[in-house]
Amino acid sequence: MTDPLPTGATIGILGGGQLGRMLSVAAARLGFRTHIFEPGANPPAADVAHACTTAAYDDVAALTAFAQSVDVITYEFENIPTEALDILEAITPIHPNREALRISQDRLTEKNFLTGLGLQTAPYADIPDAAALTAALDTIGTPSILKTRRFGYDGKGQARLTSPEDAAQAIADMAGAPALLEGFVDFSIEVSVIATRSASGDVACYDPGENVHRAGILHTTTVPARLSASLRTDAVLLAARILNALDYVGVMGVELFVTPSGLIVNEIAPRVHNSGHWTQNGCAVDQFEQHIRAVAGWPLGDGQRHSDVVMENLIGDDMDRVPELAATRDTALHLYGKAEVKPGRKMGHVNRIIR
Amino acid sequence: MTDPLPTGATIGILGGGQLGRMLSVAAARLGFRTHIFEPGANPPAADVAHACTTAAYDDVAALTAFAQSVDVITYEFENIPTEALDILEAITPIHPNREALRISQDRLTEKNFLTGLGLQTAPYADIPDAAALTAALDTIGTPSILKTRRFGYDGKGQARLTSPEDAAQAIADMAGAPALLEGFVDFSIEVSVIATRSASGDVACYDPGENVHRAGILHTTTVPARLSASLRTDAVLLAARILNALDYVGVMGVELFVTPSGLIVNEIAPRVHNSGHWTQNGCAVDQFEQHIRAVAGWPLGDGQRHSDVVMENLIGDDMDRVPELAATRDTALHLYGKAEVKPGRKMGHVNRIIR
Repeated sequence: MTDPLPTGATIGILGGGQLGRMLSVAAARLGFRTHIFEPGANPPAADVAHACTTAAYDDVAALTAFAQSVDVITYEFENIPTEALDILEAITPIHPNREALRISQDRLTEKNFLTGLGLQTAPYADIPDAAALTAALDTIGTPSILKTRRFGYDGKGQARLTSPEDAAQAIADMAGAPALLEGFVDFSIEVSVIATRSASGDVACYDPGENVHRAGILHTTTVPARLSASLRTDAVLLAARILNALDYVGVMGVELFVTPSGLIVNEIAPRVHNSGHWTQNGCAVDQFEQHIRAVAGWPLGDGQRHSDVVMENLIGDDMDRVPELAATRDTALHLYGKAEVKPGRKMGHVNRIIR
Repeated sequence: MTDPLPTGATIGILGGGQLGRMLSVAAARLGFRTHIFEPGANPPAADVAHACTTAAYDDVAALTAFAQSVDVITYEFENIPTEALDILEAITPIHPNREALRISQDRLTEKNFLTGLGLQTAPYADIPDAAALTAALDTIGTPSILKTRRFGYDGKGQARLTSPEDAAQAIADMAGAPALLEGFVDFSIEVSVIATRSASGDVACYDPGENVHRAGILHTTTVPARLSASLRTDAVLLAARILNALDYVGVMGVELFVTPSGLIVNEIAPRVHNSGHWTQNGCAVDQFEQHIRAVAGWPLGDGQRHSDVVMENLIGDDMDRVPELAATRDTALHLYGKAEVKPGRKMGHVNRIIR
C-alpha cells in the first residue's frame, strides 16, 4: 500500500463476531464503510456494517465478489483457510500480511519463529505421534500441556498432563491432529502488549495490561500492569521486534509471562485482542481504530493512557449482571448484541475506570 | 415505558444524519439494533445500522412498517411533521415526548414556555405581519433578528436588522412564514448544557461547554467553560428545571448566554447536540449513549469528565485538514462518511484532549 485510503473507502473484514463489530464501528468513525464476510447467520458485526456477505470460505464466487467490493481486507481471527486467502489476495491487499497469518495459524511454526528471533518461549516439542510424546515427556516432563498445532482458542484443543500416565488420553484428545507439547512456565503474572505497526513502519504500543484467566478464557485485564519500568520497556521492545520481523501492518496482541528469568512469550495473535478492549475507555484512540488506521495506511493515533482501567469479560450468564452494571459509576458497558446466551460465550465486556 | 428494553431490542431513529449515525453506534455498544428512517438516499447513519427505511415522512405504509419493526422511537432532529408523529406514536412510544417536540418546533412557543418557567430569554415579539414588526421594533429596537418560527437551523431562516429601515427586506426574507423578532443580547460567552433525564426521572448534566460560532454554525466547544462555580450550578439547575417541566426522557441541548444579569436561554434542542460531541472523548459515557440509555429506560451512565477537551467542527473544505489532523497527538477524529463535501456542510469533528 502506498497512498492512505480516502475517507469513504470500504474496508473488508473477514469474520463477523465482536471483534469485527468493534472494528466496524472504528472504521465508521474515520468515515470508512465496512463489508463483513462471515459464514454464520446474523453476525454481530452486520448490525454496524454497510454490507455483509453470508457465505462459506470455500465459496469462490462470494469471495471474489467480496474482494472486488472492498479497497483493503483485514480479519478478526487468524484461522482463515489458505485457499480463501489465495482468492482474496489475488484481487485486494490483505493486512496483516500472509506471513503473520501463516505463523500464527500453527503453534509450532509460531514457537519456532519466536525462538528464532531470540525470544524466550515455554519449552516445547513437536508431537506428530504418540512416540514423540513419550520422548518429549522425558525432557519437558509434567505438568505440561498438549495442544493441537492449529485451530485452538480459548482453551479448546488442549489436554493437560499431570503425569506421564496421561499421555495416552492426551493423544486421544487430539483426535489425530498434529500437536505440540508445552512445558508449564512458573510465572508471576501474565501481561499482554497490544502493539500496532503502520504501513510506514511506525510502531506504537499501548501500556501493557495484566491478564487473569478463568477456565481458559480471559477474565480481566488491568492497566497499568504490575510491571517494573525495565520489564515494561522489555515488553514493548520485544513486541516491536516481532512486528518489525514480520513487516507487519495492523494490531497484534502479544501475551507474555513474567518470570524470574524475564519475559516469556506465550502467544501472539495477528489481530485486535480481547486484552486490548480496555483501550476503548482508557485512550483517545482505541485498538480498533489503531488497527483500521494501520490497514488503511493512515498514521497511528494517540494511544496514550488517560485513565487506569479494569476490563472484565461478560461470559454467558454474566449477562444477568447487566442491569446492575449499567447503574454502576465509572463503568462503561460494551455488549455484542448476540441473540443467544451460552455458557462460555463472550457476550460483552465492561471497562471500569479507576479514579 | 416501565421495563427497561432488553439488549437485542431495536431502536428506531428518525433521521439518518451524523447524529443518527453516532446514536446508532452508541445503541450497538449496549447490544441494541437500530432502524433508521430517512427520506434522503445513502444516509450516513445507514452504514452503522441494522436496517434503514428510505421513505418520505408522508409515506403512511413506510411509517407504519417502521413503527411496527422497532421497540421504541427516537429522533435526531426536531422538525418531524406532526402527521408522521401521529402515525408512529399510535404504534410505538416516542422519546423525547411530543410536548418537547411541539415546543421546540416553534421558536415562539419555546420562548413562551421558557419565560413561563421563570427563565430569562432574549426580548422577543410575535411577528405575524409587517405591522407587528413595526410595532415590535419600537420596543425591542435594533440590532435585532427576525426568525421564522419554524424550520430554522444553523442560521437559516433568519434576517438581521441593523436599523428600522431593514424591516421591509426582513419581512420579505421570511417569505410569508410566521416569524418572531428577537432583541440582541449583550453576552460575554455562550455555553451549553447537555442534560439527560431518565425514564425514572433522574437528571444528569455534563459539564457546560463554551461555544464559539462562525457564520452561524458552531465552530468549537471547549470544556470546561469559563464559568464561575455559581453560574455552573445555575446552568445545571436551569436545565434540570426545563427537563422536569416537560417530563422529558432523553438528551437535551440547552444553549445559554452568559450576561451580567445571569444566564439567558438562547434555545433548546430536544436531541443530542453538536456542542455535546466532546463527551465522546471526555467521559466514560457520551451523550449518544446517555440518550440511548434514557429512551431505552436504562439508568443513566457516568458522564463525569475525565479530560478537558476542545471540539472543533470540520465544515466543508476543513476535510482537507484530515491527513494533518490524523497525525496530530491528543486528537480524536470523528468523520461522518458523507460522500460529497459542500460549503457549510458538517463533515466531521475533532476532539482535542488537553493535557
